[in-house]
Amino acid sequence: MSSLNKKTLILAASDIEKIINEIGINEIMDQLIDNMTHEFKNYDPQKKIIPIRSGFNYKKPELGLIEWMPLHHYGEKVVVKMVGYHPSNPEKFGLPTIVSTISNYDTHTGHLNSLIDGVFLTALRTGAASAVVSQLLANPQSTVLGLIGCGAQSITQLHALSRIFDFEKVVYYDTDEPTCQSFVDRVSMLELEVEYKKMSIDEIVQEADIICTATSLNIGEGPLFHHLETKEHLHINAIGADFPGKTELPVGFLKKSFVCPDFPEQAMIEGECQQLLKDDIGADVFECIQNPTEYQYLQNQPTVFDSTGLSLEDLVVMDLFLKHAEEMGLGQMIEIENISLDAKNPYDFIKKGREINIEQAITLEEMNGQALHKNFVKRTLE
Amino acid sequence: MSSLNKKTLILAASDIEKIINEIGINEIMDQLIDNMTHEFKNYDPQKKIIPIRSGFNYKKPELGLIEWMPLHHYGEKVVVKMVGYHPSNPEKFGLPTIVSTISNYDTHTGHLNSLIDGVFLTALRTGAASAVVSQLLANPQSTVLGLIGCGAQSITQLHALSRIFDFEKVVYYDTDEPTCQSFVDRVSMLELEVEYKKMSIDEIVQEADIICTATSLNIGEGPLFHHLETKEHLHINAIGADFPGKTELPVGFLKKSFVCPDFPEQAMIEGECQQLLKDDIGADVFECIQNPTEYQYLQNQPTVFDSTGLSLEDLVVMDLFLKHAEEMGLGQMIEIENISLDAKNPYDFIKKGREINIEQAITLEEMNGQALHKNFVKRTLE
Repeated sequence: MSSLNKKTLILAASDIEKIINEIGINEIMDQLIDNMTHEFKNYDPQKKIIPIRSGFNYKKPELGLIEWMPLHHYGEKVVVKMVGYHPSNPEKFGLPTIVSTISNYDTHTGHLNSLIDGVFLTALRTGAASAVVSQLLANPQSTVLGLIGCGAQSITQLHALSRIFDFEKVVYYDTDEPTCQSFVDRVSMLELEVEYKKMSIDEIVQEADIICTATSLNIGEGPLFHHLETKEHLHINAIGADFPGKTELPVGFLKKSFVCPDFPEQAMIEGECQQLLKDDIGADVFECIQNPTEYQYLQNQPTVFDSTGLSLEDLVVMDLFLKHAEEMGLGQMIEIENISLDAKNPYDFIKKGREINIEQAITLEEMNGQALHKNFVKRTLE
Repeated sequence: MSSLNKKTLILAASDIEKIINEIGINEIMDQLIDNMTHEFKNYDPQKKIIPIRSGFNYKKPELGLIEWMPLHHYGEKVVVKMVGYHPSNPEKFGLPTIVSTISNYDTHTGHLNSLIDGVFLTALRTGAASAVVSQLLANPQSTVLGLIGCGAQSITQLHALSRIFDFEKVVYYDTDEPTCQSFVDRVSMLELEVEYKKMSIDEIVQEADIICTATSLNIGEGPLFHHLETKEHLHINAIGADFPGKTELPVGFLKKSFVCPDFPEQAMIEGECQQLLKDDIGADVFECIQNPTEYQYLQNQPTVFDSTGLSLEDLVVMDLFLKHAEEMGLGQMIEIENISLDAKNPYDFIKKGREINIEQAITLEEMNGQALHKNFVKRTLE
């Protein structure tokens, strides 16, 4: 039983890469989309409790925020994703905007069972979530995908959606010229048979069947476009709004669209739903995915997935990688929590240290005789 | 600069033990009491932001809770202690009631700088906090220490207080007979020249100059004692109340005492202060420690330190151990966050994997020539 294990599984960045290289990125994305669809379909808020995320935001030393996104899988575990959002990371530090780890605690004992990367996993699950919702709300015959903002998140948006839709054309834009220019190269490993074309935001909005917005707009800088003619069935996955005051889409488009938030209470604080009254907001992802026949008519109407990020998505992606890690025997087990042999004596190891002075010549036989001290001796001699 | 480091320092349980064995437990406790006093004296709520902790509590699979205790040191870091409280741990799993880890994030980038044990560190800092407050509020001539509840926390309460006071007698009680019987043996390594005596709670309350209550009372089971004659200057460090509905002390004693909470808002939710109105509560630790001459008169009156636990204390103890770990060169550096070479391409490592097929015969010279891919190749070949 895992709760009797005192060690924590650390799944390192290199382990994530080994899993991807072994399983294949397409297969992993397909598994993730399947698992997430299944999780949304069967979600029971009594069994998986998701509070609104909370955290600190600040202007120094860099503009940014660090948040915790907790989830309680009742009777099993608590999962907390810690996620930093620092827009200056790529330019100043060569790091992604989003830096993150996911921790997994056993609710039998409070033990930290595992700690795993959240950078790659967040990018992956955010893409998968757009695919899950787009599969229901976007037009199935969509052939033109628009990407506004071509940073890290755009790669997994394109990848995930391309697993569901047969795109012929990908039209893209980023305010940062080098980011725009490197985009096609960055996605070349996906080997998609599509035409890539750089366009202005206005052109993208008019031409695309599906759009993903994943920008680092500053607070109050939005919207990305104003009132424009769009395709009647345009579906937008709005990824970038994740901060009070930061929104990407014009309120006019939101008001004429069916807006499906991942987490209504959170979306009204930091998503596109900040711009809407409660009555303007459509059903949430769970309602939509659990009752697909009721919402399929929306494939011919303008729709928006207001994706602010759900710890449930983190649970799904974490579980998937932990499963593969276990099958492949990956990760390091480290005893981080200082669990004394005697649960009622945190100083236990000091006491034993005095009793068994390892500078004295104690033979292994003698030590093995001291059953109670065995574990300590092993530690000391390591 | 630490924020450019992509690796996370994992300080394992064994590293904590090496530090203690190197520095000595008395010296560590003295340093911790000094640092905590300094931190309380200089605390500025604008620079170190401490929200009320939050978490999940549950009845299955075991009665327990998992909480996060965050702190934002503005301009520097975010520290989050995750702490589980599971009273059935010692009997069912041989684990301490409190299981915990402390994480340390860089606010330049969101990077997880370090992860360190929180079990030993929580016990240590909870002891130190009682010492810091008792040094001001308890009678300096105190000779009799009472311990009600003889589990893990009682060990560090005794240790910390014995660094400040010259006790002649330690009187103790635990509802669990084996815990009571093993107590003197468990604290023998402290080598205190005191008389240990098991007593009833009522006897302890009447005889002690200072009492520490650290029990696992169930909700609604309190108080531990009723109206009793006590020494006029009795000071109680109330450690155990840390759950809504769980309190240890009789409201009568609280009302006639000066009650100093570590964190008033939190103490009113889960500490002894649950039993008091706002006007019945004294100044908090910061006010008291920052103005010692104003509060010294309390050494001759009944006082209570309502200790619910402060993430500021976790910061102090974490910093102390990180400093010693650095000086001793301890800990493992692991790249947990999957930071791609190209901050805007999470799939970067896959692309490089295709370009450099390591099954082909590539010489080391050739690889070193490919400066951009160097890091990847190193990873792949590891």
